[in-house]
Amino acid sequence: MSISLGVNQYGKAENRVVRIYRDTDRHSIRDLNVSTSLRGDFTAAHLEGDQADVLPTDTQKNTSFAFAKKVGVESPEQYGIALGTHFLTAAPKATGSQIRIEEYAWDRIQVDGEGHDHSFVRRGTETRTAIITVDGRGDDQRVSVVSGLEDLTVLKSTGSEFKGFLKDEFTTLEEADDRIMATSLTARWRYNKTDGINFDEVYEDVKKLCLAAFATTYSRALQETLHAMGKAVLEAHSEIDEIRFSAPNKHHFLYDLDRFGIENKGEVFIAADRPYGLIEAQVVRDDASDPGEAWTAVPSFI
Amino acid sequence: MSISLGVNQYGKAENRVVRIYRDTDRHSIRDLNVSTSLRGDFTAAHLEGDQADVLPTDTQKNTSFAFAKKVGVESPEQYGIALGTHFLTAAPKATGSQIRIEEYAWDRIQVDGEGHDHSFVRRGTETRTAIITVDGRGDDQRVSVVSGLEDLTVLKSTGSEFKGFLKDEFTTLEEADDRIMATSLTARWRYNKTDGINFDEVYEDVKKLCLAAFATTYSRALQETLHAMGKAVLEAHSEIDEIRFSAPNKHHFLYDLDRFGIENKGEVFIAADRPYGLIEAQVVRDDASDPGEAWTAVPSFI
Amino acid sequence: MSISLGVNQYGKAENRVVRIYRDTDRHSIRDLNVSTSLRGDFTAAHLEGDQADVLPTDTQKNTSFAFAKKVGVESPEQYGIALGTHFLTAAPKATGSQIRIEEYAWDRIQVDGEGHDHSFVRRGTETRTAIITVDGRGDDQRVSVVSGLEDLTVLKSTGSEFKGFLKDEFTTLEEADDRIMATSLTARWRYNKTDGINFDEVYEDVKKLCLAAFATTYSRALQETLHAMGKAVLEAHSEIDEIRFSAPNKHHFLYDLDRFGIENKGEVFIAADRPYGLIEAQVVRDDASDPGEAWTAVPSFI
Amino acid sequence: MSISLGVNQYGKAENRVVRIYRDTDRHSIRDLNVSTSLRGDFTAAHLEGDQADVLPTDTQKNTSFAFAKKVGVESPEQYGIALGTHFLTAAPKATGSQIRIEEYAWDRIQVDGEGHDHSFVRRGTETRTAIITVDGRGDDQRVSVVSGLEDLTVLKSTGSEFKGFLKDEFTTLEEADDRIMATSLTARWRYNKTDGINFDEVYEDVKKLCLAAFATTYSRALQETLHAMGKAVLEAHSEIDEIRFSAPNKHHFLYDLDRFGIENKGEVFIAADRPYGLIEAQVVRDDASDPGEAWTAVPSFI
Repeated sequence: MSISLGVNQYGKAENRVVRIYRDTDRHSIRDLNVSTSLRGDFTAAHLEGDQADVLPTDTQKNTSFAFAKKVGVESPEQYGIALGTHFLTAAPKATGSQIRIEEYAWDRIQVDGEGHDHSFVRRGTETRTAIITVDGRGDDQRVSVVSGLEDLTVLKSTGSEFKGFLKDEFTTLEEADDRIMATSLTARWRYNKTDGINFDEVYEDVKKLCLAAFATTYSRALQETLHAMGKAVLEAHSEIDEIRFSAPNKHHFLYDLDRFGIENKGEVFIAADRPYGLIEAQVVRDDASDPGEAWTAVPSFI
Repeated sequence: MSISLGVNQYGKAENRVVRIYRDTDRHSIRDLNVSTSLRGDFTAAHLEGDQADVLPTDTQKNTSFAFAKKVGVESPEQYGIALGTHFLTAAPKATGSQIRIEEYAWDRIQVDGEGHDHSFVRRGTETRTAIITVDGRGDDQRVSVVSGLEDLTVLKSTGSEFKGFLKDEFTTLEEADDRIMATSLTARWRYNKTDGINFDEVYEDVKKLCLAAFATTYSRALQETLHAMGKAVLEAHSEIDEIRFSAPNKHHFLYDLDRFGIENKGEVFIAADRPYGLIEAQVVRDDASDPGEAWTAVPSFI
Repeated sequence: MSISLGVNQYGKAENRVVRIYRDTDRHSIRDLNVSTSLRGDFTAAHLEGDQADVLPTDTQKNTSFAFAKKVGVESPEQYGIALGTHFLTAAPKATGSQIRIEEYAWDRIQVDGEGHDHSFVRRGTETRTAIITVDGRGDDQRVSVVSGLEDLTVLKSTGSEFKGFLKDEFTTLEEADDRIMATSLTARWRYNKTDGINFDEVYEDVKKLCLAAFATTYSRALQETLHAMGKAVLEAHSEIDEIRFSAPNKHHFLYDLDRFGIENKGEVFIAADRPYGLIEAQVVRDDASDPGEAWTAVPSFI
Repeated sequence: MSISLGVNQYGKAENRVVRIYRDTDRHSIRDLNVSTSLRGDFTAAHLEGDQADVLPTDTQKNTSFAFAKKVGVESPEQYGIALGTHFLTAAPKATGSQIRIEEYAWDRIQVDGEGHDHSFVRRGTETRTAIITVDGRGDDQRVSVVSGLEDLTVLKSTGSEFKGFLKDEFTTLEEADDRIMATSLTARWRYNKTDGINFDEVYEDVKKLCLAAFATTYSRALQETLHAMGKAVLEAHSEIDEIRFSAPNKHHFLYDLDRFGIENKGEVFIAADRPYGLIEAQVVRDDASDPGEAWTAVPSFI
C-alpha cells in the first residue's frame, strides 16, 4: 500500500489588523480580519517534520501587520494582492497563496451634525470580504480577486409569493400569494482583472445594485431574486465575470391568531431560526474568463 | 433539616415577534425578541408537580404574539407594559412579572434616492432593549421601565490616555499618552415614570448623547468617559433617574514594527479578543426614586 | 440637580489561564477562564480621571497568571480565594473583589487502554464555575464561594408529563402524558464555609446527584425536577446552604407524520431553538446563613 | 452581452431530527442536524419564477423527518443515503443531491453504577458528521460517503517542538524545543464503497486512531501529526481512500513570570484566541478511486 500527502495549505488565520490613517487631524480607519495561507510542496514538513521550507505562520502574521504600514490599505483587495504576491517570494517552495480578508465598516460619530475627526461607531450592517488568490510564479503567475459581502440582512414585507411548485406525498406546504421574504445575503463576485479598479467604489455599487434588485423585483422565489441581483451586477460592471450568492431563506411564519378571535392579515409573524431554506446560485457571463484557482478553498459556497 | 423553595421565576424566552404595520402601502416593521417571566408562589408546582396555578410558558408565548396585534407595538416599552400587567391578571398566584425585549432596527432600502415602501435592510449597529417589571397588584402595583442598548461599538483613534495609576509588584503596563480606546457599550437607564414618555424619541436622544460624550470627552480612563455619558443623559432627561453602563475595554495594541525597521506612530494595531477590561458603573440622581424590583434579575450587570 | 457615581466595578475579564503540573512525567492540567473585578470608592477615576487608586486591569491580568504558579490551582475555588483576598491588599481603596472562574475539563487520551501521560482530549460535557466574592477588610472580611456548572445538557425520552395547568383565552397547549424533557442546566451552590472543603470532590458529587435526580424523578414539570435536584444536594451536603438553577426547557415537538400515513408514537421529534421555556429556582435551607454579597453581580440569574 | 445561470443548489438546512428508539423500556437516541440540497437544471425557477420543477425545501424538511421513521437511523450514513437517493426520484429535474448530517452523541446517565434506561447526558466532546452525495440517475448513479468529526479538541503538554524553519526579514519567532500543542480537529474521510460497512464502528475506530496518533507522535510540527493520523487511518481501513484534516493551531504562549521573580518552566500559559495557525492537509492512497462529486460544496475545507 502506498500513501501520499495530497493537497495541503497552511497559514495564519484571523489576524485582526487595524490601520489608522492619521496624517491630518481627520483620521480614518480600516479594520480588517486577515487570514493568509500558502500551498505547495511541503512534503518534508508533513512526512519528516523538516521545517526548512516552511515560512512560519508567525512570520505570516508579522508580515500582515507590517504590510498594513509598508504598502498600506488603500483597499482590502490592493493590500491583499501585495501580501499574496509577497508570500510567493518569501517562501520558495510555495506554489500559491490565498489571502482572505473581512472588513468591518465604521462611520464617523455625528456631533452637532458633523462627522467627528477621530471618533467612530461600527456600522454593523454587513461584512465586506475579499479573497485574493495568487497561483504560480513569474510570467505564469495569476492573481485572482473575489470580492464580496456577508450577512447583509434584508426583508420585504410584501411583493413575494411562492406557488405552482412540484408536489409529492410529503408535500404539506400551502401556496403563498403574499409572504415575508427575508435573507441574510452572502455574495462573492470575481473580477476579470486587477488593475485600474477602484475596489471601494465597485463594492458600494454592487451592494447598492443588490439592494435595489431585492427591493424592486417582484419575487416568485428567492431564486428569482438572486438571479435579478446577479444580472444587475453583471450588466453594470464589465470588470466582473461572475457572481455567486448564498442566501438562507429566513422564514417568517404568520402567527395563527384566529384561535383567539384576532384577525392577522399579514401583521404578526414568528421569525424562525432552524431549519431554514438555503439557496445558492451563480450568475456568470457566457464568455467569462477561466477562474483558475480563484474559487479553490473558498469557504461555505457552492 | 428543613428546606424550602426560595425565589423562582418561569416564562418563555426569546419569542421572535415581528410586527408589520401595513395600513397603507408604506409598511413599517418592529422586530422584537420577547422574553416573559412570572414570579410568585408556585410552591405546589415545585414540590408536588401541581400545575393548577401555572400559566404555561406556551400560553405566555401565544399572548406575546396576540398582544403584538391587540395592543400593538407603538414602542417596545408600551407593548411590554401591556404584556406585563396582563400576566398578573392572567395568573392569580403571580406576584410579579418581567418582560425583557430586544429590538432590531431596520432601515428602508434606498432606491433612486428614496426609501422603499416595503423593503428593508437590517441596521446592525446596536440592539435596543427594554425591561419592564411589574410588581404587586391593585393600588400597590408598581411598573418599572429600564430601557437600554447593547453592543454599540465605538472607537476613538486618539484623545485617550491612561497614566498615573497605582503600581505594585505585578505591574508591567507602561503609561500611555495616546492610545486607541474602543468599547462595545451596554447601557440601561431607569425611568421614574411610565406615562407621557415618547420612548422612541428618548431612545434616540440617549444614544446620541452617549455617542457625543464618547467623541468629545478627552478620556483619562474609560471610567471617566462612562461618567461623562451618564451625566449628559441625566442632565438632559429629567424622566430618567439613573443609568448603568457595562463597557468592555476592547484593547488595541500597537504592533511592534520597529523590529522590521518600520516606524509605527499609532498607525497599525492588533485588536485583541481576550482578556479585555470590563468597566461597569452607575450614574444616579441623588434624589432618585426607589428602584424597587426594577433591577431584579436583570442579566449581566452590576 | 445633583448627580453621583453609584455602584461600580472594574477588572479584567476572561484571562485564559492554563496551568500544567509537570513535576513528574505524568502531567495534569487545569484550564481556566478567569475574570477579576474590584469594587470600592473609585470616584476620582470616574469624575476626574485620576488613576492613583486604580490597580490597572493589566496588573490584575498579570496577577492572575502569577498566582497560577505562586499559589497554584489545587481547585478553582482555592485559587480564586487567594486571588480575591490578594486584590484587597493590593488596592487599598477597594472594598470588595469578585473572581469568576470557568473551568474546562480534560480527559487523558486512551492509548492501548491506558490514559496517556501528557496528551488530553477536552471533555466538553459541561463547564465548571466558581465565583468568589471577598467583601470588606480585616476582621470584618467575608469570603463567599458560589460554585456551579453550566451547560450540562440532559434529556429524558419518557417519564415526563405536563397537565392540569391554568388555562385562559390564549391557551392552546394540549396536555401531555408522555413527552421528551430536555434542558441545558446551569446550577450554582453557595457554601456556608470555605475551610476544610474538597471542592473538586463536592463538585463531582453535586453533579452526580443532579444527574441522578433528573434521571429518577418522574417529572410533572421541570420545576419539580429542579426541586428534586436541589433537595438531593442540600440533604447530602451540609456545607452547602442553597442552590440555584436556571434551566431552559428545550422543547422537542412530536413531528406530525400522520399526514403521510406514518405512525409516530413518540419516536420522531423536532428539536426547537426558540422560544424556549426558562425555569429558574432556588432551593434553600431554612436556617441558611446570610449570603451577604455572594450573589451580587452574578450573571444571568434570578 | 449574454448571461447565464451557472451552478446552483437549494435545500433545507439544519433540520433538527431527534429519533428515539423505544421498542423496549431501554430507549436509545440519535440526535441529528440534517441539511438537504438538490442540484440540477432549475433555470425556470431562477429566470422566470416558475416552480413547476422545484421540490420545495418544506417538502425536503417533511421528508427528512418522515425518513427518520420510515427507514430509521441505523447510522447517519445509512439514513443519508436513503434520503439522498429518494430526492432524485422525487425531483425529476435534479441531477444530484447532497445530505449533510451532524450527530450529537448522548451517554446514558449513570445511576448507582448503571446506565439509565431513558435518561441521557449530552457528551459534548466532538460532533460526528456525514456528507452523502448522490450524482446522476439509473446505472450511472454514484453515491459517495464522506464521514467525519468536528471540534475534537486535543492538547499535549509536551512532546512537541518547532524549529529549523525558514527565516526572512519578518521572522521573530524563536525556536521551541518543548511547547504545548493543541488543536480542535476537523477530519473528513471518504469511503470507496457504501455497502458492507458498519459506519458506527468505523467512526469509533478512526477517532481512536487519530487520538492515539496525536498522543504518541513526537511532533516537529502540526503537519507531521496530521500526517501520522491520516497514515494510521488509511493503513487500518481499506474501505477509506482518503482523509482530510483541518486543524487550527491553538496557540498557548508561556506567560512571562520572570518579570515577577517567579520561575515558569512550562507551567503557566495563556491560551490565545486569534490569530491562530490553520493547517489543512489530505492524506490519500495512491490508487484512490475518483472522488467524483464527493467533495463538491463540502464546507470549510481545502
